[in-house]
Amino acid sequence: MRRQITGFSNPTIKRLKSLREKKHRKNEGLFLAEGLRILTEALETGKTPQILVMVESADPHPLAEKIESATLAAGGEVIETTNAIMSKLTGKSNPQAIVGIYPDQAVPLAELDRTRADIWLVAQALRDPGNLGTILRTGDAVGAGGLILVDDCVDPFSVEAVRASMGAIFTQSITQARWPDFLEWLRGGPAMLVGTSLNTDQDYQAVQYQAPTFLLVGNEAQGLPAEYEQACDALVKMPMMGKADSLNAAVATSVMAYEVLNQFRHRDL
Amino acid sequence: MRRQITGFSNPTIKRLKSLREKKHRKNEGLFLAEGLRILTEALETGKTPQILVMVESADPHPLAEKIESATLAAGGEVIETTNAIMSKLTGKSNPQAIVGIYPDQAVPLAELDRTRADIWLVAQALRDPGNLGTILRTGDAVGAGGLILVDDCVDPFSVEAVRASMGAIFTQSITQARWPDFLEWLRGGPAMLVGTSLNTDQDYQAVQYQAPTFLLVGNEAQGLPAEYEQACDALVKMPMMGKADSLNAAVATSVMAYEVLNQFRHRDL
Repeated sequence: MRRQITGFSNPTIKRLKSLREKKHRKNEGLFLAEGLRILTEALETGKTPQILVMVESADPHPLAEKIESATLAAGGEVIETTNAIMSKLTGKSNPQAIVGIYPDQAVPLAELDRTRADIWLVAQALRDPGNLGTILRTGDAVGAGGLILVDDCVDPFSVEAVRASMGAIFTQSITQARWPDFLEWLRGGPAMLVGTSLNTDQDYQAVQYQAPTFLLVGNEAQGLPAEYEQACDALVKMPMMGKADSLNAAVATSVMAYEVLNQFRHRDL
Repeated sequence: MRRQITGFSNPTIKRLKSLREKKHRKNEGLFLAEGLRILTEALETGKTPQILVMVESADPHPLAEKIESATLAAGGEVIETTNAIMSKLTGKSNPQAIVGIYPDQAVPLAELDRTRADIWLVAQALRDPGNLGTILRTGDAVGAGGLILVDDCVDPFSVEAVRASMGAIFTQSITQARWPDFLEWLRGGPAMLVGTSLNTDQDYQAVQYQAPTFLLVGNEAQGLPAEYEQACDALVKMPMMGKADSLNAAVATSVMAYEVLNQFRHRDL
């Protein structure tokens, strides 16, 4: 049962378009994900959109039909629209043919079960949505428990972050917390807090990581505040052989996360 | 000896603005880099811009003054302009206060000295300028010899790639080559060609890498063509513990590059 919308001034279209802005996402508790690949990833983790928007097609993709059926079966709404309206909705001249509106699923700190995984990722004041999405994608890859955002990070539910996550926005739990609250929660159970920093000579491979390890990465330009570094159980750095003194934040997090994963998987052998 | 330009229709401003387009960059053999951090990185590797554009300031940054002196000493031109014109030049509403125009420095395959480094990065049909710049940045960090681009990659001298490289555009050599030419050159000397691929079960840590190792990463969406995978001495994959089957291309390259670096540096001990 599709509803057709072809008018630009339709209030539903206006409402969905407003989800490109953080304040509207926050008010509605919804976010927008684009494209067959990411929506299929969502479906595979059992998540269907509240509202599915599709461009009319004479030859629909089987995966799109599957998402449509699942959406309707779960009580969601399906809207059929034109390419021009989809452009307006997504702000792109060459939009995806399928878009889903999902409830955001931030998990409160108190509900996190740290024993669920050996690796957790923690980002502080991360500003680039591409970096945030890429870190989510790496989190999925290394089997992280989730991503904890402290201080004023970019919105993980922004279109750019969702796109860069390549679907990991649906598989990784996301928690937003103030630093003191995070630290109090962290010290309420087993945890090794590891910061990547330029203010240390400790090689990242010289440390024996203990599960659960919480990998803390700081702001792209500033790194971690000194006070946060002092709260870490270990500060480590990757060898830098060239002129540059730092790596991209998502790259640094990923190289660290694979080191921790490698230590854990080889220790198990 | 600054030249002041305050008119929007000034031909020099028009010419510099045109460098945002690939065809003009190619015609002129020049590219545009923005911001004090990247221009300082350039200066530290001995590179000064042909043309330096600065916003007039009552309180100039000492590093900006240093770049200005070096530019003039090397026979370059310095243009002082307004914030509004800088916006036009860079296409940003909140532009950097300093921009440099540099000769692009692509190195022909035949001039590459493979003995110069133990690690080389090779990208095939890479499409995202952020990924390309990030790979350059990682190349610098692991002491790679340079980046070789095969097939139709995004322009490494685009503003976005230059920005993501955080200055590594000036420290890493860049080579563009057709695949058959690259392969012929590669096999003309010692080389281990290693592809990251989903079509293998070989763990990336189970392979003993030999210097010089050439790390080959494929297109973001398609991965490597089958023919290219067959030409590799080893195909490897990172463990994927979650739902996703792949990492971001720059992340995968970086995790691989650090594994190779780690093997080499621990073998030397």
